[in-house]
Amino acid sequence: MTTPLDLDLLESQVRAALAADDVDALRQLVAQIYPPDLADIIDRLDDEDQVRVFSLLETEQAADVLDETSIDATRELINQLPAEQAADILEELDSDDAAAILTEDVPERQQELLAAMAPQEAADVRELLRYPPQSAGRLLNDQFVALHESHTAAEAMERLRRIVHDSAIIVYLYVLDDADRLIGTVSLRRLLVEPPERRIADLMRPAPITVHPESDQEEVARVVARYDLAAVPVVTEEGRMLGVVTVDDVIDILVEEGTEDVLKFGAVAQGQADETYFTVPVTTSVQRRIVWLLFLFVAGSITANVLEVFEAELQQVVALAFFIPLLIGTGGNTGAQTVSTLIRAMALNEVRLRDVWRVLGRELLVGFILGLLLGVIAFGRAFLEVSLPNLALTVALSVLAICVWANVIGALVPIIARRLGVDPALVSAPLITTLVDASGLTIYLLIAKILLGL
Amino acid sequence: MTTPLDLDLLESQVRAALAADDVDALRQLVAQIYPPDLADIIDRLDDEDQVRVFSLLETEQAADVLDETSIDATRELINQLPAEQAADILEELDSDDAAAILTEDVPERQQELLAAMAPQEAADVRELLRYPPQSAGRLLNDQFVALHESHTAAEAMERLRRIVHDSAIIVYLYVLDDADRLIGTVSLRRLLVEPPERRIADLMRPAPITVHPESDQEEVARVVARYDLAAVPVVTEEGRMLGVVTVDDVIDILVEEGTEDVLKFGAVAQGQADETYFTVPVTTSVQRRIVWLLFLFVAGSITANVLEVFEAELQQVVALAFFIPLLIGTGGNTGAQTVSTLIRAMALNEVRLRDVWRVLGRELLVGFILGLLLGVIAFGRAFLEVSLPNLALTVALSVLAICVWANVIGALVPIIARRLGVDPALVSAPLITTLVDASGLTIYLLIAKILLGL
Repeated sequence: MTTPLDLDLLESQVRAALAADDVDALRQLVAQIYPPDLADIIDRLDDEDQVRVFSLLETEQAADVLDETSIDATRELINQLPAEQAADILEELDSDDAAAILTEDVPERQQELLAAMAPQEAADVRELLRYPPQSAGRLLNDQFVALHESHTAAEAMERLRRIVHDSAIIVYLYVLDDADRLIGTVSLRRLLVEPPERRIADLMRPAPITVHPESDQEEVARVVARYDLAAVPVVTEEGRMLGVVTVDDVIDILVEEGTEDVLKFGAVAQGQADETYFTVPVTTSVQRRIVWLLFLFVAGSITANVLEVFEAELQQVVALAFFIPLLIGTGGNTGAQTVSTLIRAMALNEVRLRDVWRVLGRELLVGFILGLLLGVIAFGRAFLEVSLPNLALTVALSVLAICVWANVIGALVPIIARRLGVDPALVSAPLITTLVDASGLTIYLLIAKILLGL
Repeated sequence: MTTPLDLDLLESQVRAALAADDVDALRQLVAQIYPPDLADIIDRLDDEDQVRVFSLLETEQAADVLDETSIDATRELINQLPAEQAADILEELDSDDAAAILTEDVPERQQELLAAMAPQEAADVRELLRYPPQSAGRLLNDQFVALHESHTAAEAMERLRRIVHDSAIIVYLYVLDDADRLIGTVSLRRLLVEPPERRIADLMRPAPITVHPESDQEEVARVVARYDLAAVPVVTEEGRMLGVVTVDDVIDILVEEGTEDVLKFGAVAQGQADETYFTVPVTTSVQRRIVWLLFLFVAGSITANVLEVFEAELQQVVALAFFIPLLIGTGGNTGAQTVSTLIRAMALNEVRLRDVWRVLGRELLVGFILGLLLGVIAFGRAFLEVSLPNLALTVALSVLAICVWANVIGALVPIIARRLGVDPALVSAPLITTLVDASGLTIYLLIAKILLGL
């Protein structure tokens, strides 16, 4: 196996072997590449070469690679294979990974491929598909070690040996009662050090942390991260154990959610898990962006009405217009800072709904201090440009007022979103900027009317 | 142990017991709360109550709680304890967690507390402190099972039993040569199913994926996430194995980096790992925000100069000013979308440096389509307001030009940042907005000059 460092080098070696049409060299080369690396390389080949490389893989490696390729490559590869062969590869995957491919990558061939799979594996996948997308149920792994209180440590070890999956991360074994309800866990470490004749009832730790199959995957990730678990058991409302969600799935969720949060904050509508930058068609990219842009454009166009209302004042003092972009820019920047701070604080549960007054007090104070500091600088800057002390004072006071106002908006909007049951991470920086723009302009021109006597 | 659901309820029970000064009830109550939950509750108590609750904990629970409390609470709790007692708690922690507390929470007492710790534990922590902050070396866990090729499976199991730490996630055992160089791994699963007399040499998988102690923690997280590892071995340049970084640390890194990325994107300077929203002093919060705000303010104030240059044109057609906020807002929004898409694509390695032309072509096209769609709407919107077809056309063409331009800026800046060795995630939405503002205005007023014959 190679080290993960030299992806560019590996890619050029694969391309060279493809160009030379040297099948043996290619087969040798790809057999040595780690599946995630090979998936990356395949993603970057054209369709025909993707299939040429993929067809050289053994079923097991093929499954591992297919699990990591982007949505387009996965579709292409599966659709180039006879259903029988595609089904063999899907059987090789964990049920949750097979279910993900059958729902996200080739949904239109779901029934056909399930029918071609071995009955037991197909039934396992169908079981997972009963749960909603992005739920714990979709990530279920049913390869866990189930024990009974009456077992001995030796019997438990015997059961552990019978679990097939080689790469499984086994830290806990699960103790079920006669109705398959989870009543406790035993750590593998404990089993290894205790005398073989000890009863599980004496070794187990009761009342483990669990999630339900309907729990959102973000919630699952939060629980695993918070309590440092290697796997979290999934139980029904009645406490019956269905399986575990393992830490490697949780890591994938965290990476995916990280992507989503940054995109949401940039006001780009959400995409799918397996896509990559270049595999998203331009039209899809436009669709995801235009909705927000249009909304913000329409909302932002109210600024034109605000300015029209003050047409006479602008006519009298054209220099008022010079500072419009600077003032609304500063308001937008301050608001974006506040909202990014709060979204994270709420995601990490540091700020809860009942903290609204504390948050507001804090952000008012921060906004006031920031506004004072920037206001002083704004006075100097404006006076240098226009040499009119009253106009410079107008700009300075507006900076102060807008900073306070933007901070309040940036704090309130995500909290209100949460109270309305909307994900606060949907509150994007551009949304706040747009909200602050029209109101900030009104503040500025009202102050101007008073101070300049217009 | 309680379930993690009812944090508010638990907090009010703790507060009630504190108010009633009922030490026994309080002791019973806190003993049942999971450490991360108790840490959250302690974070929200005032200083005196924090110490009252903490002093009721056994050393082991105290260590687990201290590992999870926010930076301010951790400082307060450690500083209220005699050095001997604080050292006892630090000894109970993994070396990497103790090192984190001694560098981030109470750096000024580092030497004093290390001197008070047991010599072996203090030496372990000092060892980690030799590595740079946020490196793999700082996360080193030296409790791994080291084997020799000549061992049998039975001997390996015997060594495994001697590892002390109860909650350790053990998936692999590590095979070292006579110079302590890592030459292979054996999975625990394999050990369990093979006959006890098999030689490790026959069971091991050679050339494992490794990281170096100087590797950045983000790089470590990427490797663990990419290859679905439960732990990654850390080796020196010469291949000598120092320890492992475990998946629970990687999850903490991913959560932390997620926070950093959103904050950077909102142009808030980076904070520390353990702080929470309310524990950061207002002055610190202002400091972290003012630097960026000032920079953006100064950069943004160039817009005032641009507008001054066009003072005569604005004087002639005041209605030109009406559309300034809308145009620069649209440019900023488009640019923010592009930059958020690219930052993630680069973080996930989907876009590399040599892809710059492909990226540029794609973003030009997307910008053009978005600009066309918004331009049509802008024409209608402007014509409705001012009834001047040439002005409406000016606004429409400017929207088109600014969308294309903002997309190019939003794509180029993160790529240039990467080429210059700057983290592309530092390219914030506000930075792009500010860059697009002045140039967008120039585009608008130049088009106006031509179309309106000014």
